[in-house]
Amino acid sequence: MTELKNDRFLRALLHQPVEVTPVWMMRQAGRYLPEYRRTRSQAGSFLDLCKNPHLACEVTMQPLRRFPLDAAILFSDILTIPDAMGLGLYFAEGEGPRFTNPVQDEAAVKALGVPDPEQDLGYVMDAVRTIRRELDGTVPLIGFSGSPWTLATYMVEGGSTKSFSKVKGMMFERPELMHQLLSTTAESVISYLNAQIAAGAQAVMIFDTWGGVLSPSDYRTFSLAYMKRIVQGLTRESEGRRVPVILFTKGGGQWLGAMAESGCDALGVDWTTDLAVARELVKDRVALQGNIDPSILYASPQRIRSAVAEVLASYGYGSGHVFNLGHGIHPDVNPDHAAALVEAVHELSPAYHG
Amino acid sequence: MTELKNDRFLRALLHQPVEVTPVWMMRQAGRYLPEYRRTRSQAGSFLDLCKNPHLACEVTMQPLRRFPLDAAILFSDILTIPDAMGLGLYFAEGEGPRFTNPVQDEAAVKALGVPDPEQDLGYVMDAVRTIRRELDGTVPLIGFSGSPWTLATYMVEGGSTKSFSKVKGMMFERPELMHQLLSTTAESVISYLNAQIAAGAQAVMIFDTWGGVLSPSDYRTFSLAYMKRIVQGLTRESEGRRVPVILFTKGGGQWLGAMAESGCDALGVDWTTDLAVARELVKDRVALQGNIDPSILYASPQRIRSAVAEVLASYGYGSGHVFNLGHGIHPDVNPDHAAALVEAVHELSPAYHG
Repeated sequence: MTELKNDRFLRALLHQPVEVTPVWMMRQAGRYLPEYRRTRSQAGSFLDLCKNPHLACEVTMQPLRRFPLDAAILFSDILTIPDAMGLGLYFAEGEGPRFTNPVQDEAAVKALGVPDPEQDLGYVMDAVRTIRRELDGTVPLIGFSGSPWTLATYMVEGGSTKSFSKVKGMMFERPELMHQLLSTTAESVISYLNAQIAAGAQAVMIFDTWGGVLSPSDYRTFSLAYMKRIVQGLTRESEGRRVPVILFTKGGGQWLGAMAESGCDALGVDWTTDLAVARELVKDRVALQGNIDPSILYASPQRIRSAVAEVLASYGYGSGHVFNLGHGIHPDVNPDHAAALVEAVHELSPAYHG
Repeated sequence: MTELKNDRFLRALLHQPVEVTPVWMMRQAGRYLPEYRRTRSQAGSFLDLCKNPHLACEVTMQPLRRFPLDAAILFSDILTIPDAMGLGLYFAEGEGPRFTNPVQDEAAVKALGVPDPEQDLGYVMDAVRTIRRELDGTVPLIGFSGSPWTLATYMVEGGSTKSFSKVKGMMFERPELMHQLLSTTAESVISYLNAQIAAGAQAVMIFDTWGGVLSPSDYRTFSLAYMKRIVQGLTRESEGRRVPVILFTKGGGQWLGAMAESGCDALGVDWTTDLAVARELVKDRVALQGNIDPSILYASPQRIRSAVAEVLASYGYGSGHVFNLGHGIHPDVNPDHAAALVEAVHELSPAYHG
């Protein structure tokens, strides 16, 4: 493997000194880029794009050609695991993800198996290997998975939901069944992420998009406990370097203290929590990643720059901060505004280091 | 006016002793009730229902005939004020509220006036008077309004939104214009709620449904500051009793401490915050209202009862707690499950009082 030319992302995640705060953007490969939209239409469906390692690599690289980002993230869907379990993932036009075979009773839960990553999700591992070759050591590659709870919401509901009626119904009424579902899913995530690491992912992130719809006690029991189990099961060293693990619960600002005890290296923070408050809560046990409001990209480059300055100041002096949006980039923002954000982070952050 | 037979809701909001924890449910008059659906179809459109004081009274009373609730809440829409400002509220089938004339530039903001409640929103005041007569002193009536920030999101976006691109665009790029919009809206809310109080509302609640999409600093500047201004402008005594004011920011668990300093009497709390943590944060400066996960109503009556017990225990001993859901009741729950919740609160809560 080629030596890594820019490792400030990995260093910051491990609280090691950096000269500049590293920055990447959740969903940096996406619809706001015209070149992404071209590749996407060339691919056919969204799922065709995810399942084509060559095109998945292409869209992963696109934002890096435009902006001096400090990390790449594997382009893939969050629901590849349930798809590999046989749930039949498809995308209804304008309606988001759907499953042909949702998991709604005991028989369906018991029938779930742990997919073999190289056999059943080989297209993801091929994408990881292809991207690593293409990156050629410029910046590290982040692998990722959805959290067990987040995957379970889609698996039980059969798609997106606002009320979470079926998945919470199962959680409240059949907690032992929900635990079995989460347990199988957690085992699958462990094996999936370890395969990504073996294929070349240099850091991994677990997206708990829907942990924030739970009560504090249900969050600990049905989401955090399984993320903790995953963290314990992951390969933590590869190619002679530590592989940092990032947990991100959207809307989880109140639980950062508990999350910091999971054994992970870093926590994603959304923009509803001040980074100074978050840092005080986690007391440098973990690094923090975030947390500018993604809607700031609707404002002018000048205004974006002042907002970047505020976020840098809220984290304050020292390493342990990876700059990011507090959630995925909106599909209708101007790419030049994303450029202004990345530039501002690199220009303004050296004052907080060294 | 008839004397109030059951005032435990008002007493709890003022931290006065009660023998039983009072309970009501956000959106207790609503689609989950077959009798509501009948009245709704009889009325014509949803807006026709809101604008007909007789039918608005009828649906307000419906849940009280089924369940021994400790408060009634005015049936109305959150967007009556912008409608009275001339924005032209309508409901596109299956798409939620829309405005014919959204407020998207300086001219539109400057053209906004403060509606006269009795002239322009007379149907709301008529509904309040009709409901008070019909209640005949059984339980108190809650009046309500949206918060200025929450109203502004609909006014600027022209309807519901997921990205808040236009309203946040204005907030980031033209903060002085946003302040002018919020200022006019706050004046309108003050005059609207004072008219509701004059017409007979015995407590008022401000729903800040979308304050939780802001950063902590933007929340204080663009939402909380205006709710504070409203609290200061409200009539606080009527019919010889204090009129308690409740603020509720959905997703505002991290900001309860700041909200408690607004001068309000009580805070609504959603289910992502433990009531014990919330109580510690507000240190009995204000009462708390909430906070069971509304999805618990998908579970069995037995399971609902144990969840009610947990919420009562998390608040703990003493007055200052009004039991409620952490958000509106889902439209597809079984009314018998709502009955089980109300019953459990009344049966289990005396252990925490006296």
